[in-house]
Amino acid sequence: MLDADTVAALRTCSAATLTTQLFKRGLRNVFMQGVRPLTSVKTPMIGAAFTVRYIPAREDIDHVGVFADPEHPQRKAIETVPAGQVLVSDCRRDARAASGGSILLTRLKVRGAAGFVSDGGLRDSPEIAGFDLPVYCGGPAAPLNLVLHHAVDINVPVGCGGVPVYPGDVIFGDGEGVVVIPKHLAAEVARDAAEQELLEAFVLEEVQKGAPVIGTYPPSPAVQAKYKEWRAKRGK
Amino acid sequence: MLDADTVAALRTCSAATLTTQLFKRGLRNVFMQGVRPLTSVKTPMIGAAFTVRYIPAREDIDHVGVFADPEHPQRKAIETVPAGQVLVSDCRRDARAASGGSILLTRLKVRGAAGFVSDGGLRDSPEIAGFDLPVYCGGPAAPLNLVLHHAVDINVPVGCGGVPVYPGDVIFGDGEGVVVIPKHLAAEVARDAAEQELLEAFVLEEVQKGAPVIGTYPPSPAVQAKYKEWRAKRGK
Amino acid sequence: MLDADTVAALRTCSAATLTTQLFKRGLRNVFMQGVRPLTSVKTPMIGAAFTVRYIPAREDIDHVGVFADPEHPQRKAIETVPAGQVLVSDCRRDARAASGGSILLTRLKVRGAAGFVSDGGLRDSPEIAGFDLPVYCGGPAAPLNLVLHHAVDINVPVGCGGVPVYPGDVIFGDGEGVVVIPKHLAAEVARDAAEQELLEAFVLEEVQKGAPVIGTYPPSPAVQAKYKEWRAKRGK
Amino acid sequence: MLDADTVAALRTCSAATLTTQLFKRGLRNVFMQGVRPLTSVKTPMIGAAFTVRYIPAREDIDHVGVFADPEHPQRKAIETVPAGQVLVSDCRRDARAASGGSILLTRLKVRGAAGFVSDGGLRDSPEIAGFDLPVYCGGPAAPLNLVLHHAVDINVPVGCGGVPVYPGDVIFGDGEGVVVIPKHLAAEVARDAAEQELLEAFVLEEVQKGAPVIGTYPPSPAVQAKYKEWRAKRGK
Amino acid sequence: MLDADTVAALRTCSAATLTTQLFKRGLRNVFMQGVRPLTSVKTPMIGAAFTVRYIPAREDIDHVGVFADPEHPQRKAIETVPAGQVLVSDCRRDARAASGGSILLTRLKVRGAAGFVSDGGLRDSPEIAGFDLPVYCGGPAAPLNLVLHHAVDINVPVGCGGVPVYPGDVIFGDGEGVVVIPKHLAAEVARDAAEQELLEAFVLEEVQKGAPVIGTYPPSPAVQAKYKEWRAKRGK
Amino acid sequence: MLDADTVAALRTCSAATLTTQLFKRGLRNVFMQGVRPLTSVKTPMIGAAFTVRYIPAREDIDHVGVFADPEHPQRKAIETVPAGQVLVSDCRRDARAASGGSILLTRLKVRGAAGFVSDGGLRDSPEIAGFDLPVYCGGPAAPLNLVLHHAVDINVPVGCGGVPVYPGDVIFGDGEGVVVIPKHLAAEVARDAAEQELLEAFVLEEVQKGAPVIGTYPPSPAVQAKYKEWRAKRGK
Repeated sequence: MLDADTVAALRTCSAATLTTQLFKRGLRNVFMQGVRPLTSVKTPMIGAAFTVRYIPAREDIDHVGVFADPEHPQRKAIETVPAGQVLVSDCRRDARAASGGSILLTRLKVRGAAGFVSDGGLRDSPEIAGFDLPVYCGGPAAPLNLVLHHAVDINVPVGCGGVPVYPGDVIFGDGEGVVVIPKHLAAEVARDAAEQELLEAFVLEEVQKGAPVIGTYPPSPAVQAKYKEWRAKRGK
Repeated sequence: MLDADTVAALRTCSAATLTTQLFKRGLRNVFMQGVRPLTSVKTPMIGAAFTVRYIPAREDIDHVGVFADPEHPQRKAIETVPAGQVLVSDCRRDARAASGGSILLTRLKVRGAAGFVSDGGLRDSPEIAGFDLPVYCGGPAAPLNLVLHHAVDINVPVGCGGVPVYPGDVIFGDGEGVVVIPKHLAAEVARDAAEQELLEAFVLEEVQKGAPVIGTYPPSPAVQAKYKEWRAKRGK
Repeated sequence: MLDADTVAALRTCSAATLTTQLFKRGLRNVFMQGVRPLTSVKTPMIGAAFTVRYIPAREDIDHVGVFADPEHPQRKAIETVPAGQVLVSDCRRDARAASGGSILLTRLKVRGAAGFVSDGGLRDSPEIAGFDLPVYCGGPAAPLNLVLHHAVDINVPVGCGGVPVYPGDVIFGDGEGVVVIPKHLAAEVARDAAEQELLEAFVLEEVQKGAPVIGTYPPSPAVQAKYKEWRAKRGK
Repeated sequence: MLDADTVAALRTCSAATLTTQLFKRGLRNVFMQGVRPLTSVKTPMIGAAFTVRYIPAREDIDHVGVFADPEHPQRKAIETVPAGQVLVSDCRRDARAASGGSILLTRLKVRGAAGFVSDGGLRDSPEIAGFDLPVYCGGPAAPLNLVLHHAVDINVPVGCGGVPVYPGDVIFGDGEGVVVIPKHLAAEVARDAAEQELLEAFVLEEVQKGAPVIGTYPPSPAVQAKYKEWRAKRGK
Repeated sequence: MLDADTVAALRTCSAATLTTQLFKRGLRNVFMQGVRPLTSVKTPMIGAAFTVRYIPAREDIDHVGVFADPEHPQRKAIETVPAGQVLVSDCRRDARAASGGSILLTRLKVRGAAGFVSDGGLRDSPEIAGFDLPVYCGGPAAPLNLVLHHAVDINVPVGCGGVPVYPGDVIFGDGEGVVVIPKHLAAEVARDAAEQELLEAFVLEEVQKGAPVIGTYPPSPAVQAKYKEWRAKRGK
Repeated sequence: MLDADTVAALRTCSAATLTTQLFKRGLRNVFMQGVRPLTSVKTPMIGAAFTVRYIPAREDIDHVGVFADPEHPQRKAIETVPAGQVLVSDCRRDARAASGGSILLTRLKVRGAAGFVSDGGLRDSPEIAGFDLPVYCGGPAAPLNLVLHHAVDINVPVGCGGVPVYPGDVIFGDGEGVVVIPKHLAAEVARDAAEQELLEAFVLEEVQKGAPVIGTYPPSPAVQAKYKEWRAKRGK
């Protein structure tokens, strides 16, 4: 599980700032493309990744009867994702059919999942849009998953929105979208990102007061000194 | 025209449930892709399809003068679509130019059309977004239709959002998008979809109360029995 | 700078009407594709274009150190765009990474720019969405520009959203999107578009009262006469 | 039918030169996009357009039984396209399934058609590649048309490769691709394009001999004079 | 392994005919999209599928050092695919980087594999184009796999070119492309496809002799009788 | 100009090997996407980049008259690119219209350019395909550049096929495609790539003789020793 300090630090961060910290560590492809928030995001979604992998559907295998199977990976994932984790669905970036709907996502919420992320579609989207659960997807899509997607694996490494996702990676989502933080970097990235957010809060104040971007962002030595005072005042 | 029972049943349904019923009948491609609601949808759009077909525009034919022609198919469609029907425009999924604007859609509303659907763009979209008429399109696009689209036919079979649409098919739209129901299946699909909605309302209650998805959705014999009681209580 | 009459006329216009006037003058490609408003647009954005050009980033050149350079074109553009002008960024229609964020756009606002337009992404989009500044982009994107974009030139002719933009062209934006008006046509297009808006206001009233589109839009001689009276009453 | 002079002139032309002549007449969208030659083109394909229109397939309608119907539009088109004309198929630019195969194209050849053009796929492509018939398509695709395409109309105006095609328009194809020449412009465009080809043959000779492009192409008065002599020598 | 009769029958078939037989059994999505032959195909590629699955690469994991690991899935797959089988790589349809090159494919050939299929790219493509091994891919791409692709699994169900591929499915390739035949259908599909090829050979002869498509394809009772004789003569 | 050793080394290399050397130096985006050889490539194209930049065309500016202007950037570039250099055209990856044709490319050849590269289209492609000049483009396209492209700058940094190109960078092309080598890395990349080619020639021999990939590629210490001998025999 994620340690409390990391979670606390991440709570103060934005997806944008996290991508900067990952970029500084040589990771350029960490923001899911084409995956957007469906529910309104008040506080960031933060949790370890629990994945489901889909392949293209085949008419003779993917009939409505499959859901009677208690081992069906999509349903099983909903029932086994640990509380506090984020269910991540790899639908090969094909959002023309759903990777879930209101009943499955209600169950996910009841079970205490931290959120749901898919690069496929979601059905019952108008209803889900009102859920108090962070939900991200490739777009609304009424057709059930069987039309295009066959759930095949649980908790294996996948791609989602073009980004690699390994089980246990930290999935962060805000109103902008979803960032994947490799497990082993989570603590230091969270710490440095929180620092960066503090500096940017100061810089924003300066800019609002009329400071030019050049010299302030990044800060010149003089501005850095001013920032130290600003921090001190706030006891940080 | 659509019979009252079918309309009444469809009023209780969602696009998602209708795609499931059509999938059970072997129809997999019934949800328009890339066609989204522009107006806020309170009650579903339900009506028979009345179509307009567009081909690519040609500079020497498609000049502003064409609208003076009372036979211009786009304008004529607006004036001839029967009340209660849905005007469906096939723009070859090219939303870079408009297939209508606020004046034409106002007329459509005055004439009592059930709604407007296009896989092309719509201009005056900020104004139309406030209309009390179900409107679905490929996106906002200021350029007039003549830039890319030439209206050529009225009420012929077309494609819209990648889905076949035959005049008279039932067009259903909700906040998720648009489903096309073949005329001859409308009554049975509506009936079975309404049934499915009832079951899913029960299942949702169960899941909200803590029932697992497996065994509840689809329901085990025990859950089916419970559902029978639930229905009975509601006198259904 | 734009003359007051042109600005006054443009204030009464929509993007849609402007594309019609430009189409009448043989210009078909004037509406930016894939560039959407991020902030809510109450009054139109109107200003001369001031441009920034980006090329694909290169790992050895585009590291976080570059922003320390006071000559960095992105930062320099923010500090040099004249008040009342619109900053237009050509990101080759690649919205997977940002072309700006909340600090740069705050500075832009403080400096009195008329707006910001990019066919790349924007980071901090949830925060920017609340800004009282017209902002248009290719979509939200957390990754910083360095991941994909290298700012290389200021105020050269560029393409944005597939449309040619020459420094000084008039950039107009409303809730639908962005239109580019060649400098030398701005005055006449604004005048004729304002005229067209007046006629369409009348036509809309007529249609709301039950007039058919055919004969009213475009107006027959009889309707034109009625329009003259309507205008006269309004002292126009 | 096309008059002999027009055909004779077109035989000396390239697709490139024809697009220039059409551009001079205000037509910018005349070259089919995504439609490539499948057979090796020795002499240009020249013929009047005879069209077939497809819409998306529907599972319950588009079963293998349909081909037993002598009125099936795809089969009927093959049997009714007049000798010397080009069969143009509008498949909505979807090349994932076929719009024909070796048997149908063999029949087309036996019947004396001038060629086959489709923005859909073609099956049996390795075999067809060896045919002595001009064939253009969106690419090889083994799946039969019924998987995606439903033939619905014969000889109506269509779009193909994004270009409007009206029955009777002149379809020209060479090793580069397909150009659509509006019927009423065919004679003058053919004449002027043949003239342009002659000039470009001269210019090419000059450039091969070392003449710079500037001054030669377009030709300066001096070079024009030289060209007159060159033509005279050739008795043209 | 595939039984000899099935292989013998498939040797007489084309990808097109196989898709028809699969379509008759309700399978519509069996032809890989965007996967083309790189080598010249004289006789069909026929073999059971052995798969490799890739996810997006991550900079800190996918460095050149990984190939020293004898367990690296890409290299291991090359060394473990049984003779007579086809190696199928799922690269999420991203052909911007390679999924193999001349050394790996040479080894594959030496080891007796039946062929190589990928929806990713291939490097050293000019060299491989001359190989006497059936090779299909998404296109030439010089960049090594590590730039975009991380090999993660061997012989699991995957998608390739948008088609589901289960280990052991029969992979068939000809000059047109690749068809996936579900294992359990291979024998009957092969038998019926071989039958269909025989009928189509007869039909083609008839059409070459001047028979119309209608009545011949599909064959009327009379033509069927004629076909029986034709077959008899050939002792089939 | 490029030093002789670098050119000599590059002559022994492939695009694939060069991308590996650049990847080892942290450069992942060096191979042009969607840019393919139009002429048959016998020996690699090697030369410094000389660029032309295009923006979208505007109808009132981009008429056929522009070519009379001796300063027109497209024509001027053809006349000023130094012998031995490669002309690189940035057409914003839009290959629907041409960025050159047979006359301009003939002049380029006469002037001794090392090759032509464009991410736009080329017209007269069947003729150019036979040229003895390395030519790479986004595909055949008959329409003249004015339909979509406006040449605006010469020899500025550009993007081509998604890759940054700075004037003077080394442009390398073989039958696979085009790699861009940053000027300051050319010498060392060429040297190390030539070394890699030698090792891979040895490895390929070993694999052809039956050596497994694992242990051979990359080579184990034992295989490295064997390689040293192999090299020694060849006096390298």
